[in-house]
Amino acid sequence: MTIKDYEMIIGERMKAARFRHSKNVAKEAVRLAKKYGADAEKAELAGILHDATKETPEDEQMELIRRAGIVLSPLESSSHKLWHAISGSAFVKVELGIDDKEILDAIRYHTTGRAGMTLLDKVLFIADFTSAERDYEGVEKMRKLADKNLDEACLEGMAFTISDLSVRYQTIAPDTFEGYNEFAYLKLTKKK
Amino acid sequence: MTIKDYEMIIGERMKAARFRHSKNVAKEAVRLAKKYGADAEKAELAGILHDATKETPEDEQMELIRRAGIVLSPLESSSHKLWHAISGSAFVKVELGIDDKEILDAIRYHTTGRAGMTLLDKVLFIADFTSAERDYEGVEKMRKLADKNLDEACLEGMAFTISDLSVRYQTIAPDTFEGYNEFAYLKLTKKK
Repeated sequence: MTIKDYEMIIGERMKAARFRHSKNVAKEAVRLAKKYGADAEKAELAGILHDATKETPEDEQMELIRRAGIVLSPLESSSHKLWHAISGSAFVKVELGIDDKEILDAIRYHTTGRAGMTLLDKVLFIADFTSAERDYEGVEKMRKLADKNLDEACLEGMAFTISDLSVRYQTIAPDTFEGYNEFAYLKLTKKK
Repeated sequence: MTIKDYEMIIGERMKAARFRHSKNVAKEAVRLAKKYGADAEKAELAGILHDATKETPEDEQMELIRRAGIVLSPLESSSHKLWHAISGSAFVKVELGIDDKEILDAIRYHTTGRAGMTLLDKVLFIADFTSAERDYEGVEKMRKLADKNLDEACLEGMAFTISDLSVRYQTIAPDTFEGYNEFAYLKLTKKK
């Protein structure tokens, strides 16, 4: 299948605005992949597919997760906003038959990040923050960081998520926390 | 030994302002202990001793930690601001001969909190936020919460810590993260 085929598939699963976002993320992921030496084809595929199940009913998402053999922790079960990353990865595996671990992982961790992120994980994680249509407060800072240092951009992204969640007393995914601490520790020890 | 004896000991280890803080924390810890049914004597002792090593040179703190048989993780080793809680607990054990696990733990976790906090842990953790001389922005909110619901006060305290650290890209103690998520999850599932 070509990228156009995958675009057709996800185009039927989501509204126009999210489809445009997906195309923008794919484009930005390719740009970052080329800049930092990741596989540009995988980046494009992961980018176009990353939100494949974001508009899918929750019961169908759960069914995809179950079929992919993934068991959620109580914390994951309670964090509905994180489901689409897990079910998206599951969809790509069980429905599209893509069995590339790098692509599946990049989608699985595109919202939370994690400790030990692969280059492709980082590329997709950041592309989702810096895709062309993004206009949140701080996006320009993030775009500059993304062009300067991918690890520092990941730290900024996770710090943003953690700060945002903690002021609202929301649970924080252990993957986000572990990824954040890894990048923060790296920054700390580099300074010395 | 009496509380007065312990006051004498710590009075020689710190400046007047911190001594006053320690007495205020002990007083507030007793108040909270009585309110929530914790052991008031242990609360007073933990309160007066909680910052016993906060002005102790770092090499001496490390020696106390070593003598108490505590091994620090790389993250703990790099987080100098957390050392005093660990070395304080070590000091109380190896120098003062206090072997009460509840008191030692309350001091050990008074800055970070942790998952599965005991009632005494919570009392000391909060008393350190709400002692009489505290005047940070938000202290009145914290005092009200402390009088209303000790768990929600702990959640507020940890959210404050996490938010403050993340905007400065500082590493976050796993104990703080795990404690925060536990209280946030409790609040989330109570609402339903």
